[in-house]
Amino acid sequence: MIRMAESAGDPTPRRGRPGYDGPTVLRRAIEVFNRQGYEATSIGDLARELGLTKSAIYHHVPSKEALLAAALDEALDGLSAAIEEAANEGPETSAYDRLRTVVRRSVEILADQLPAVTLLLRVRGNSEVELAALKRRRVIDDKLASLVQEAVDEGSLRADIPPEVISRLVFGMVNSLVEWYRPEGPVSVEDLSNSIVDLAFDGLTTKSSSPLPASR
Amino acid sequence: MIRMAESAGDPTPRRGRPGYDGPTVLRRAIEVFNRQGYEATSIGDLARELGLTKSAIYHHVPSKEALLAAALDEALDGLSAAIEEAANEGPETSAYDRLRTVVRRSVEILADQLPAVTLLLRVRGNSEVELAALKRRRVIDDKLASLVQEAVDEGSLRADIPPEVISRLVFGMVNSLVEWYRPEGPVSVEDLSNSIVDLAFDGLTTKSSSPLPASR
Repeated sequence: MIRMAESAGDPTPRRGRPGYDGPTVLRRAIEVFNRQGYEATSIGDLARELGLTKSAIYHHVPSKEALLAAALDEALDGLSAAIEEAANEGPETSAYDRLRTVVRRSVEILADQLPAVTLLLRVRGNSEVELAALKRRRVIDDKLASLVQEAVDEGSLRADIPPEVISRLVFGMVNSLVEWYRPEGPVSVEDLSNSIVDLAFDGLTTKSSSPLPASR
Repeated sequence: MIRMAESAGDPTPRRGRPGYDGPTVLRRAIEVFNRQGYEATSIGDLARELGLTKSAIYHHVPSKEALLAAALDEALDGLSAAIEEAANEGPETSAYDRLRTVVRRSVEILADQLPAVTLLLRVRGNSEVELAALKRRRVIDDKLASLVQEAVDEGSLRADIPPEVISRLVFGMVNSLVEWYRPEGPVSVEDLSNSIVDLAFDGLTTKSSSPLPASR
């Protein structure tokens, strides 16, 4: 994994240059990548964004690609951790409950790391860094599909939709949040994750013949 | 609306040039736009793709932007027609049934016009043509949200998720198909649209206390 030139823990701005720490440089770079596209962004654009000369920015970052790698790892680390966490709940927790937890946690991570996840979801595999990120995404997707399969096998999820289709549709819905969700908007992360879990597991149709499930 | 230089109905290839009709040029252009990005595609790239010289391609298309406009209109016309069609079913059909129809038809149109819809969903508003497409998308989104609201009001959809969130989540799930659905793949359009309607309206949880809804 490619690391930033300055670590998050370095509190000392270097003399004579604006005192950016690694996380700040990364956050601003992700903003520019999302705004104008990674391919179309030059290291000069990033320097301008940060008010640095083109030579000074190399004291902060080794390359544009190192920033992309760090951003994609940030998003992927969060999603991987959420799945590991749910898997570690172990067999005493049903696959159904672990899947609900993973869906909820995915929404929270997406909302929390919206710019990095947005960048990740636009990656098309145009470089080694992008191919490595796509490979990590596939590992995550495979684990999600296995968890769905487990929940179908234990009889708690409908068996008339193929598990891999269920997985793609549910996490497609979660990922589509990057198109419209804004942390400063009117919908809270908690309401949003409740809505997505309710929609995915219980559906939109009013259950008139039985009481509404108390799923919150 | 910007039209192609040669209409779809023109069967006569011009002498001395490869005989492309308008729809073929458009289809090939959409492929290139999706593969390498619209901004990064030059009219020279399109000429190369079609085996034409750069001057010959102007006999087929007025500009790169005219191709983009035609592609986006194709996708938007299909989606608009599906919504109009459902709206025209009129008040004797419940909003619930009209919404199910719209979701189903949206999946069919997306599958049928996958390249044009993919291009549409990547548009960010970087030109007049893109802004016009985003405006048409918003009109569609507003109509979808109204239909969801109607279904909530008639009591057939759950009222504990805001209608605009329902609309965004359901059509976010539909739109996410462009990321993985391939017409030549193992999942048929019919199965896919059934799965999406079932997931959205009835949810994934096995209904152990009541028979599975016979929603197909």
